[in-house]
Amino acid sequence: MKKLLIVIVCLIQISAMSQQPIASNSIYVCPPCDNSCDDLKYKKSGKCHICNMELITKGELRNYQKPKEMTIAFYLQEGVEILDFAGPLEVFTVSGFKVFIVSKTTDPIVSQGVLKVIPDYSILNAPKADILAFFGGNGQVAAQDRSIINWIKKQEKSVDYLFSVCTGAFFLGQAGVLDNQTVTTFHMSIESLKQSFPKAKVLSNVRFVDNGKIITTAGISAGIDGALHLVEKIYGKERAKLTSIYMEYDKWVPGEGLILSKN
Amino acid sequence: MKKLLIVIVCLIQISAMSQQPIASNSIYVCPPCDNSCDDLKYKKSGKCHICNMELITKGELRNYQKPKEMTIAFYLQEGVEILDFAGPLEVFTVSGFKVFIVSKTTDPIVSQGVLKVIPDYSILNAPKADILAFFGGNGQVAAQDRSIINWIKKQEKSVDYLFSVCTGAFFLGQAGVLDNQTVTTFHMSIESLKQSFPKAKVLSNVRFVDNGKIITTAGISAGIDGALHLVEKIYGKERAKLTSIYMEYDKWVPGEGLILSKN
Repeated sequence: MKKLLIVIVCLIQISAMSQQPIASNSIYVCPPCDNSCDDLKYKKSGKCHICNMELITKGELRNYQKPKEMTIAFYLQEGVEILDFAGPLEVFTVSGFKVFIVSKTTDPIVSQGVLKVIPDYSILNAPKADILAFFGGNGQVAAQDRSIINWIKKQEKSVDYLFSVCTGAFFLGQAGVLDNQTVTTFHMSIESLKQSFPKAKVLSNVRFVDNGKIITTAGISAGIDGALHLVEKIYGKERAKLTSIYMEYDKWVPGEGLILSKN
Repeated sequence: MKKLLIVIVCLIQISAMSQQPIASNSIYVCPPCDNSCDDLKYKKSGKCHICNMELITKGELRNYQKPKEMTIAFYLQEGVEILDFAGPLEVFTVSGFKVFIVSKTTDPIVSQGVLKVIPDYSILNAPKADILAFFGGNGQVAAQDRSIINWIKKQEKSVDYLFSVCTGAFFLGQAGVLDNQTVTTFHMSIESLKQSFPKAKVLSNVRFVDNGKIITTAGISAGIDGALHLVEKIYGKERAKLTSIYMEYDKWVPGEGLILSKN
């Protein structure tokens, strides 16, 4: 992971070379973010052109507390579809998030009938995360488990974002957080989601839907686009774009979903 | 996996409904392939419009030996990039291939610094596969291991295809099979591959290169496209297309690579 971050930082440096900012006696600086822009100085307030963070004065820098690394709990159930979670895991890891794997227990699970995965934590000992993420592949059935739903309910108010790919939306629905939200899911489960959660507005033919706190995506490969959107939302377009370049995912179309809230 | 195959078969059935073949006293049939077309009859020779297999006569059917399920050994090293292998694993599993995971030993490995994976086999006890597949993420370093290279050398002549994603190409290079081949790799490793294997013609800015037996792809997300191409090559466009639809990967562009041989 360190290697990946170094690569991202290098990419950011290369990108920065074309737009040299003022490096003399200036008053605005970028809040420390472990990128090359930590050493830059600006004459005007505004946003850092590299990491997109709001610039602060040198005086503010003395009392500045660096925000902690965003953490994401990936909940993986037995039978979870591999690309559902692997696409977002690639995106979030390359973008500098800290991802950990949670399952009902710490016993190995089998993804896609093939890949044996050892979870980092069970729902009994998982640390608090900033984002909870859920994925399809047996999602509709696994979401019937009350112990998992109770685990979500205990923390859904305190997390920053709830993210689902494919039939991972059924976990969020069972936890009661899809009421009055506009959402999507795997193309073959649209009707089932509608029937299961009639208070949600379920859309088809959309790559992701962003309600602000709750982001749901269409099936399988759409998780990649939803994750890139969340990176863009949290860290800005530059970081999301560099991640897509690193991944050679030039098929990414920023904003290719329904964005109902930018917060 | 069974569920996925059922879905694919259903999709094939839906697709078939628009083109009803003759179901009376006809002489040509599709070789058994576990799809809905197994029960269809045709009046003329040619290819099955569902699975794209060459039709045979009813007489030939009596002596017909069903081809075995194609098997693919995914070699995963410590530090393997998650999407490098997870994209192709999704594609091949949904398309009906049998995938198993091989590593140097059967001890768990960590992908992307995050995902703990238990291999099915070590290089000492892995069964023979029809296809060997290699992936990036520490690929260049891992490919220096002579025991792994010897494992590849022992079987490279007898397998049907050799497939690599990203810096997985270094495994094939070290095994000596890239000489006089046209190949590609991760965009940040193009020069390194050229220097390491000067007898290979290394191309940049191409999603995959198909030499016939040896298929190499660009980095990370390009493995999805390379895998769909291999599905199309082996089982025909219909199956690859249905797989991409199931995965909601409408960004797939068939043939978006350099195809030097159709065999």
